[in-house]
Amino acid sequence: MKIKDKIKELKKLKSDLYGNDFLLTWEKSKDDLKTVLKVAEILKDMRDQNISPKVFDSGLAISIFRDNSTRTRFSYASASNLLGLEIQDLDETKSQIAHGETVRETANMISFMSDYIGIRDDMYLGEGNKYMREVGAALDDGFKNGVLPKRPGIVNLQCDIDHPTQSMADMQHLIDKFGNIENLKGKKIAVTWAYSPSYGKPLSVPQGIIGLMTRFGMNVELAYPKGYNLIPEVEELAAKQAKENGGTFKIANTMEDAFKNADIIYPKSWAPYHVMEKRTELLKNKDMEGLKALEKQALAENATHKHWTVDDKMVSLTKNGKALYMHPLPADISGLSCAEGEVTDKVFDKYRIETYKEAGYKPYIIASMMFVNKFKKPAKALNQLLKRNQKRFGI
Amino acid sequence: MKIKDKIKELKKLKSDLYGNDFLLTWEKSKDDLKTVLKVAEILKDMRDQNISPKVFDSGLAISIFRDNSTRTRFSYASASNLLGLEIQDLDETKSQIAHGETVRETANMISFMSDYIGIRDDMYLGEGNKYMREVGAALDDGFKNGVLPKRPGIVNLQCDIDHPTQSMADMQHLIDKFGNIENLKGKKIAVTWAYSPSYGKPLSVPQGIIGLMTRFGMNVELAYPKGYNLIPEVEELAAKQAKENGGTFKIANTMEDAFKNADIIYPKSWAPYHVMEKRTELLKNKDMEGLKALEKQALAENATHKHWTVDDKMVSLTKNGKALYMHPLPADISGLSCAEGEVTDKVFDKYRIETYKEAGYKPYIIASMMFVNKFKKPAKALNQLLKRNQKRFGI
Amino acid sequence: MKIKDKIKELKKLKSDLYGNDFLLTWEKSKDDLKTVLKVAEILKDMRDQNISPKVFDSGLAISIFRDNSTRTRFSYASASNLLGLEIQDLDETKSQIAHGETVRETANMISFMSDYIGIRDDMYLGEGNKYMREVGAALDDGFKNGVLPKRPGIVNLQCDIDHPTQSMADMQHLIDKFGNIENLKGKKIAVTWAYSPSYGKPLSVPQGIIGLMTRFGMNVELAYPKGYNLIPEVEELAAKQAKENGGTFKIANTMEDAFKNADIIYPKSWAPYHVMEKRTELLKNKDMEGLKALEKQALAENATHKHWTVDDKMVSLTKNGKALYMHPLPADISGLSCAEGEVTDKVFDKYRIETYKEAGYKPYIIASMMFVNKFKKPAKALNQLLKRNQKRFGI
Repeated sequence: MKIKDKIKELKKLKSDLYGNDFLLTWEKSKDDLKTVLKVAEILKDMRDQNISPKVFDSGLAISIFRDNSTRTRFSYASASNLLGLEIQDLDETKSQIAHGETVRETANMISFMSDYIGIRDDMYLGEGNKYMREVGAALDDGFKNGVLPKRPGIVNLQCDIDHPTQSMADMQHLIDKFGNIENLKGKKIAVTWAYSPSYGKPLSVPQGIIGLMTRFGMNVELAYPKGYNLIPEVEELAAKQAKENGGTFKIANTMEDAFKNADIIYPKSWAPYHVMEKRTELLKNKDMEGLKALEKQALAENATHKHWTVDDKMVSLTKNGKALYMHPLPADISGLSCAEGEVTDKVFDKYRIETYKEAGYKPYIIASMMFVNKFKKPAKALNQLLKRNQKRFGI
Repeated sequence: MKIKDKIKELKKLKSDLYGNDFLLTWEKSKDDLKTVLKVAEILKDMRDQNISPKVFDSGLAISIFRDNSTRTRFSYASASNLLGLEIQDLDETKSQIAHGETVRETANMISFMSDYIGIRDDMYLGEGNKYMREVGAALDDGFKNGVLPKRPGIVNLQCDIDHPTQSMADMQHLIDKFGNIENLKGKKIAVTWAYSPSYGKPLSVPQGIIGLMTRFGMNVELAYPKGYNLIPEVEELAAKQAKENGGTFKIANTMEDAFKNADIIYPKSWAPYHVMEKRTELLKNKDMEGLKALEKQALAENATHKHWTVDDKMVSLTKNGKALYMHPLPADISGLSCAEGEVTDKVFDKYRIETYKEAGYKPYIIASMMFVNKFKKPAKALNQLLKRNQKRFGI
Repeated sequence: MKIKDKIKELKKLKSDLYGNDFLLTWEKSKDDLKTVLKVAEILKDMRDQNISPKVFDSGLAISIFRDNSTRTRFSYASASNLLGLEIQDLDETKSQIAHGETVRETANMISFMSDYIGIRDDMYLGEGNKYMREVGAALDDGFKNGVLPKRPGIVNLQCDIDHPTQSMADMQHLIDKFGNIENLKGKKIAVTWAYSPSYGKPLSVPQGIIGLMTRFGMNVELAYPKGYNLIPEVEELAAKQAKENGGTFKIANTMEDAFKNADIIYPKSWAPYHVMEKRTELLKNKDMEGLKALEKQALAENATHKHWTVDDKMVSLTKNGKALYMHPLPADISGLSCAEGEVTDKVFDKYRIETYKEAGYKPYIIASMMFVNKFKKPAKALNQLLKRNQKRFGI
């Protein structure tokens, strides 16, 4: 479809994203989400056709990464650069759980010439999303009181609850695979725990997926070993949303059950909720001995679930043995990146290119979230860009 | 006032900033300083009105931070980006006191495509400013000998003697508060030591303030506990400048004396000159034991001056109990960022927004220092920018 | 010569650089090399005349530095910025010798919006160049499979075998000194080992020089103490190339022999091939004890060759006692940066400015390598830039 026609489709959507932070997909209306997806698609088309969507001639995009990251860091940098902003990283090596005046002051100090703040803070249950909202309140305060000329927008680059830039990129990938968003209705997606020799992986990816996919009439089946549940409120939310949107939400106890007849499988390791809760407590108290003990215990517990791994036999249970495998990467691949992991080398290799493509949507999803934060009428703005027809590369 | 009219005022000033480094305010004429202030104001107005002052289409602004920094780092990055330059950081983790061929060579190696070098080097008495001049001499040498196509300008982002981007931002804040620079004549500003549980804070902020404010007819009163004096030459300079410019300069022994009838209070902790001298010596000799002993002793000495703190009672001594409180941030706030510190939570909260605004001028002061270094006729250049009317944001 | 005339000369060259990585000079035709040199010269002229060669309005240039670097880092940053790209650094602090799926995946993950990847990986014999080719294959795979919209170009910023951006900058310097590339025919260049108190310096600089200079009819004389040979295949290649191109290639055993009647001297320390081989093995096995022992032994061996140093007497052996001294910097200067080193303070000081100029070509060589990777007809593109006449600085 031509860019022009995609913009026409975009025009039909009624979104309320202008000036609003993007923190949780379930705080957004379905039209909001569709708008972000469509704008991302158009931005990608534009860049692929060498039409620059640069809308800032200068300005900063701040990044705050409270956890290591390569993929999301590069995605945010790419998105910011695409729109014309320079990345400036706030390196907070010192205090991990800072609140109060420190957050309020820092948020203002870095924002005099900033247009966005992208935050990744996924280490502590109950902290990451809270921190983002605290930064947001500080920016509101600074803008209201004349400290800041503009109120920078906040993009959640992964918190303890949701990972919206990941889940939305995943959604984009599904739309691409299944033709359009309507076709996702009635499709079964299995979001399952999988064994990994590591420990402490955040819950935000599976939570983000069940929190988003249940909005679009999909049959979502979550599966994990006993005790490996997600944040209870998010599981409840997924159930409620499925009901409201003509889909289903089930929780299974085996990977086999979840995979049965699935159109899509999303197997990924995470730490059980109760472990993450305990870990947060120990980290707050700087109880290093306790942390070591917890890690040992959690790894031992994990090791009893090594059969939660995706091999040919497991895949054969899915619809026609051909479900689409998804993963946010890097996957723990048995015999490749670890002895025993989430997925066998053979299965992964079959879907390798697909997972790369899945990841490739993220920069555009982020750019889109930034774009719609600044343009009340994104369709109009995109049409202007099309008309301007500025080359990204060339003389 | 309209930008056009501000440019008209700027035109009346006779400055000599073109091609010159900005290292100490007291090396600059009053018209130089007024020019920097006015250009900063205009650049801020332009950006606030979405008029881009971008004058470079490419180029690097090098930063050398020999001490940790968040505020100044972001300010320099913002200023550079505003003018169209990309920040490139020289990370000198190894040798802190490098001189000679190393400095000369490095200065040239990083400058082939650089337009400015911003330097923060405030750790060692007798070193920071000297280092900046050494870099400057190396650039002169490289330019003269055809190594460099242009001579990059140097901006002092804080040295052992002065912190000109801070003091000039403070001055901008005062101009904004008191209407214009003429109104500062006869106003009393109390620059005082204040208690903090930390140790080794540089002297450059109070030195910068007394070195600048005495140029404009203000009554500057410096106060500190016995033994906490600043660099003697800077205190003498302040006295001399006050005399020449129709103001006064006094040194008091109590915060109470200094605050009496003050229009502005600037209470901030610093390390005594003799401690900083000893510390520099110990650091040069890498005497870690000696440093520990000095820190212990200095903290103990500090702790005997806990009454040097700004509370309601202290503020009530100022003119109508309503003096403007200033601080370069972050302040050590009692009961908030520390048990006992420079200022009570209550007082700070009252002036919090003001201190944020004070900080907000810094990026523009830096951008202005950069701007006037490259344009012989800044008023003309600003008029051209106004005419060009390029949007910072938009299509 | 005017830029226009230089472009006319460029037009006569038949190069095949479009879309190809730049990994080893000896994989490129002579016209390829001349093209890179001429484009570099033109880009420098343009910038010196305030004509911007910016050809990207946005985009990323990725840097992967697996070894410390200041000069090359700044050169790559300068080149990228000149063309309109923002640097994004991939910080791989963890695994030094990563291969397989990790490399393949990472290469794709960082490249969704990247136009180039600059790689420095010179620590391990047999690894650096191999790694670059592995990244290249991953990018080919990603592009072919629709993961990447474009295939980013790779620039070798120093590997275990070659340091093409250094050797080409050195060549540019020689062209400038001797008038043109034809004049280099028959000139004698002495590439010699020199004593340094350090250990483990890569072989890629001397290898790069003998691998490049033997292409242009020069008489290349390599000299080192017994056992300090380079990679045998590269020495053989140099001999073969000299023969094919009407020059000579000799290996001497003393600095004196090599310097005799030399037009150019290039004395520089490096670690013997067999030491580097052993070191790579030990590093792979993480044998820290073995590494310490090797370092001790290698330093002791080095210390027996302290007479391999460039002093007045040594220089007097060269043609008319006036050979051009070259060094990639920083040099180990006796009595300045170390007690005893590669060159005396007196000799270095005489050539100091020359070595700075030599270094100054590197950013433009890199920019040129990037430029020719993206324009099938570089002469045409440069003419368009000339016609566009966009100011780098100014309103």
